[in-house]
Amino acid sequence: MIIVLKPGASPEAAQNILARIADAGLKPLHMPGSERVVLGALGDERVLAGLSLEGDPSVESVKPVLAPYKLASRELHPYDTIVRIGGVAFGGAAFRVIAGPCAVESREQLRNSAAAVQRSGACALRAGAYKPRTSPYGFSGHGPEGLQILRDIGDETGLPVVTEIMDTADLDLVAEKADALQIGARNMQNFALLRAVGKSGKPVVLKRGMSARIEELLLAAEYLLAAGNDQVILCERGIRTFETATRNTLDLNAIPYLKQRSHLPVLVDPSHGTGIRDLVTPMALAAAACGADGILVEVHENPAAALSDGAQSLYPDQFQALMDSLAPIVRAVGRQL
Amino acid sequence: MIIVLKPGASPEAAQNILARIADAGLKPLHMPGSERVVLGALGDERVLAGLSLEGDPSVESVKPVLAPYKLASRELHPYDTIVRIGGVAFGGAAFRVIAGPCAVESREQLRNSAAAVQRSGACALRAGAYKPRTSPYGFSGHGPEGLQILRDIGDETGLPVVTEIMDTADLDLVAEKADALQIGARNMQNFALLRAVGKSGKPVVLKRGMSARIEELLLAAEYLLAAGNDQVILCERGIRTFETATRNTLDLNAIPYLKQRSHLPVLVDPSHGTGIRDLVTPMALAAAACGADGILVEVHENPAAALSDGAQSLYPDQFQALMDSLAPIVRAVGRQL
Amino acid sequence: MIIVLKPGASPEAAQNILARIADAGLKPLHMPGSERVVLGALGDERVLAGLSLEGDPSVESVKPVLAPYKLASRELHPYDTIVRIGGVAFGGAAFRVIAGPCAVESREQLRNSAAAVQRSGACALRAGAYKPRTSPYGFSGHGPEGLQILRDIGDETGLPVVTEIMDTADLDLVAEKADALQIGARNMQNFALLRAVGKSGKPVVLKRGMSARIEELLLAAEYLLAAGNDQVILCERGIRTFETATRNTLDLNAIPYLKQRSHLPVLVDPSHGTGIRDLVTPMALAAAACGADGILVEVHENPAAALSDGAQSLYPDQFQALMDSLAPIVRAVGRQL
Amino acid sequence: MIIVLKPGASPEAAQNILARIADAGLKPLHMPGSERVVLGALGDERVLAGLSLEGDPSVESVKPVLAPYKLASRELHPYDTIVRIGGVAFGGAAFRVIAGPCAVESREQLRNSAAAVQRSGACALRAGAYKPRTSPYGFSGHGPEGLQILRDIGDETGLPVVTEIMDTADLDLVAEKADALQIGARNMQNFALLRAVGKSGKPVVLKRGMSARIEELLLAAEYLLAAGNDQVILCERGIRTFETATRNTLDLNAIPYLKQRSHLPVLVDPSHGTGIRDLVTPMALAAAACGADGILVEVHENPAAALSDGAQSLYPDQFQALMDSLAPIVRAVGRQL
Repeated sequence: MIIVLKPGASPEAAQNILARIADAGLKPLHMPGSERVVLGALGDERVLAGLSLEGDPSVESVKPVLAPYKLASRELHPYDTIVRIGGVAFGGAAFRVIAGPCAVESREQLRNSAAAVQRSGACALRAGAYKPRTSPYGFSGHGPEGLQILRDIGDETGLPVVTEIMDTADLDLVAEKADALQIGARNMQNFALLRAVGKSGKPVVLKRGMSARIEELLLAAEYLLAAGNDQVILCERGIRTFETATRNTLDLNAIPYLKQRSHLPVLVDPSHGTGIRDLVTPMALAAAACGADGILVEVHENPAAALSDGAQSLYPDQFQALMDSLAPIVRAVGRQL
Repeated sequence: MIIVLKPGASPEAAQNILARIADAGLKPLHMPGSERVVLGALGDERVLAGLSLEGDPSVESVKPVLAPYKLASRELHPYDTIVRIGGVAFGGAAFRVIAGPCAVESREQLRNSAAAVQRSGACALRAGAYKPRTSPYGFSGHGPEGLQILRDIGDETGLPVVTEIMDTADLDLVAEKADALQIGARNMQNFALLRAVGKSGKPVVLKRGMSARIEELLLAAEYLLAAGNDQVILCERGIRTFETATRNTLDLNAIPYLKQRSHLPVLVDPSHGTGIRDLVTPMALAAAACGADGILVEVHENPAAALSDGAQSLYPDQFQALMDSLAPIVRAVGRQL
Repeated sequence: MIIVLKPGASPEAAQNILARIADAGLKPLHMPGSERVVLGALGDERVLAGLSLEGDPSVESVKPVLAPYKLASRELHPYDTIVRIGGVAFGGAAFRVIAGPCAVESREQLRNSAAAVQRSGACALRAGAYKPRTSPYGFSGHGPEGLQILRDIGDETGLPVVTEIMDTADLDLVAEKADALQIGARNMQNFALLRAVGKSGKPVVLKRGMSARIEELLLAAEYLLAAGNDQVILCERGIRTFETATRNTLDLNAIPYLKQRSHLPVLVDPSHGTGIRDLVTPMALAAAACGADGILVEVHENPAAALSDGAQSLYPDQFQALMDSLAPIVRAVGRQL
Repeated sequence: MIIVLKPGASPEAAQNILARIADAGLKPLHMPGSERVVLGALGDERVLAGLSLEGDPSVESVKPVLAPYKLASRELHPYDTIVRIGGVAFGGAAFRVIAGPCAVESREQLRNSAAAVQRSGACALRAGAYKPRTSPYGFSGHGPEGLQILRDIGDETGLPVVTEIMDTADLDLVAEKADALQIGARNMQNFALLRAVGKSGKPVVLKRGMSARIEELLLAAEYLLAAGNDQVILCERGIRTFETATRNTLDLNAIPYLKQRSHLPVLVDPSHGTGIRDLVTPMALAAAACGADGILVEVHENPAAALSDGAQSLYPDQFQALMDSLAPIVRAVGRQL
């Protein structure tokens, strides 16, 4: 329920209504705006109706939140949320580029890859210590040792680091070492993990599941938000379709759709979204053009030797070229790199 | 690698080869057959080649396992695996029916539903204490209390009980209370959960992910098998396609495809596979006709009042009718109920 | 609009209402049943409402047809339609098997293939003279010469023949030579072809498009029916999904869904629905179990030498085995072969 | 087969080889380049091999065309093809915008809509006289009368006109009235239509089928090219996936994929690709950013009153805003509007 207060409503009136909402066992929300105060109430619709808030003299209107995702919706929260990873703000005027190799393979490999992406203008470093692999016989990451290397390289370069969390049992360690947690496509509906990461309060990059509808992505985000974590970044990374020419079908329709309905920042991962190195740069430009807040790109010092995702990882000079061609597009949509 | 021994090869020769495999850091497998002994070796193909087992006098032939799933493949394990849940064998001549409500809602509801499915011939009881829900505001099950009710009703009726596990943190408790663990579609590639359940050794019903290719289902099973658990039942439950008339598209092609390539038992869930009550019985019959080892069906004492999946749950008399029409089909394919 | 007459309504009253419907520029339908007469009226809903038929003393009730497909719906036409190809009835108690090679390759090949399928119990012969091919460089059929061979072999064996029509320009010739026309998946929404075939009045086998929803298949059938042709058989032949293990995903959910909502006969094509010879028989059995009225199967005297679809064509002895295993399933569902 | 001639090869040598190719019953191709002459030969690979062209003294190398689409591939034709509709060139440095209503509804409606899109900078007018409709009861266009209105408004404004052709029987009339023919998604594999339009030589906009793989789109184009028509423009218009939030999933991955492999111009239709008015402009910008040669957009003088596709049609002022925001993106990728 969205409760819009009248223009001159006093802070006391707002507090009074919030208390009534809480007393009824519902979740109260306070959203002061520049022109008027908006309050929210989440919970059983029948209890909400029983409060008869429309009768309160300081209330202008009471209306339901139509979307099934409440906290993620712009209905309740019209202004863009800014999420901070390390010192870097996502969701504001700047277009952000997170880059790095698929996996932490060695200290040397990560140091070289990090230096390359930083030189070209990336604002954060990505690399996996825990890798989801379709086969139990694939390289599944170096685990805690990989995490430590990632932390060290983050400290050396000053780049905040983002890495995937796959199990609630690893949460404390990953949250200690990383600046932001990534929830991968295969875990988008791992609800236990969503709840745990929600409680951790760490910034999260939540990737869309391979067969998740956009609304399901927003409901997965709602799990994080409902657990008290508002530092959530959404990420489109391609969906699974009948097309076999590309690894996934990057669904850029989702970008304006999400930005129009949700206040959360939205990234695009053109590496997984295409699976083909030569398509990464054009799709990064398309992402910037249609309103994404940034991209997540795989860059490896030597993709031919990569232990995973080599075919979709950029060479450092290709990443430099991507950044060069991205700059005018970002300016064309009124943002900066 | 599959190592076929010569007809008269001695047990000592087999042990000797297994020891060489283990010494090289590889995983040895022993599969004595009625006609000849087959050994297996899993691990780095180059190390395997270095063993030069084809030169051993008791070896007839050495050939690679072509499938990416090794332990799940019939290449290494040509005979059907029988999985036992409680005293009930799956994968043999009998066609098995597991039935029950989507969720444990109350002791009364489960007792009535269990009595109904037992009366009609179900051999095991299903019901969820932990429910994966797309929205954080949906009913997500009664947790430990629900588990205890499920255990109690299982003991009262003598029906073995199957229930979903969603988080490694719940494993000890769920494994203590249930006769078999179910891994749901959304967790088919939750690799931490697969590894933990694999180590537990409990019988598992592994459901195909909504957008998982058949090969990926077999590779998910491979995680369980590689962790030491050979009590794995596969379950087709519908995939996500463009069709909106039904909740999912039940992919029965997968049944003969799986049975031809894997030795594991295969069930079909026509409730989730259609999402429409009136389609459940015809698709249950189709499943039996094309070679499934059984079905998993949602039955509720009163679907109209169900807290979840009401539209696809059968009424007790509909379930009785399903069993009645299933019997001649099961006989027609040379099996029994 | 469905107009149900009162039990004792006279034929004159029915004719009178039909005349009023026609006078208003609408399409009248007359459906006498064993218990009472049902009339139909198709056209602009506002004009229909203006007739105020509910006021007529012989009318019991007037209700809208809810489905967007009117003539194809059971709402207007509750009894099963029987379609006759040559002397063979589809949609009744018998389960029908149409078999033959993908294409007419030569007189010898078709004669041998026809003899084989007839020997095993097929009731009609299928073979293409015009073949839709993804590449312009593929074998696209022998055209008129192939048609004549098909007609001749049909006459020799007494089997009615079914063949694909791809272009309105070929309609006269194909309609003259074949006993039934097939509209292929790629042409399911070739509306000019649907209208022309509808006007021809020839029996039609209408295959579901690769990405057609079930409702769209029924609306394509509606084009045929609305053009005056009620001899329409629907055919599920697999849809396109992300699964790559099989050529298509056979959507058997569609069979009971269609049978419950439409009066038209429904066939299944397990050859295109799987694309893999070893899956054809199990899926044929599944089709019979879930309520299909028959199957359409590719059988070639020598699949290894087939010019098209060899991988999914059965050898004659495999087709004999299919028929042998089909018989008990067909009996189990209360039908005969 | 691609035959690269030596740098100094004489025109007579080239003609001689082309004659040998033709004499062998194969299709010869002549592609003079700025640096050296390339010849092509299409047909049976064994006959080609028998010519032993590598032995000719003026031949430098002979290599196969790897793609299944030969004439559409850059392997045989490395330079961009320019297609002219009226006086307007597609595939060159300019980014082209074709706009107009879904259907010709009336002379007034088309005149107003055409004036609006011309004012904002569209270079061609689109509108359908024959409309493919899922239901036989939908508005299917005004046919010949609509074509004449389209021709007249094209003449009044000077805008070349593009319209859909759905049946070979209409070809002469549509080809006489329109400047370019559109083959719609549902007819992408209507091979009779492709062959007829190929022979007509008229410029064609070929839309990707709803479930067509990119390679299948190129093979459909190959039908047109093989019939002698090189005036082919490809158009991505969204594919059918499980996502229901949007009408289709616009597959922009296809744009760079097509541009890298084929020499044909590529357009994007963001109207059908999204089905939602508010997503059209962002996806038009994305299309320009990732390398499309232009867009095809639905604009109606009053979308609320449109007989078809109203929800995805832009209001004239929204189209003006689209053009305004497109301009800087087009410049950013080094092209002009």
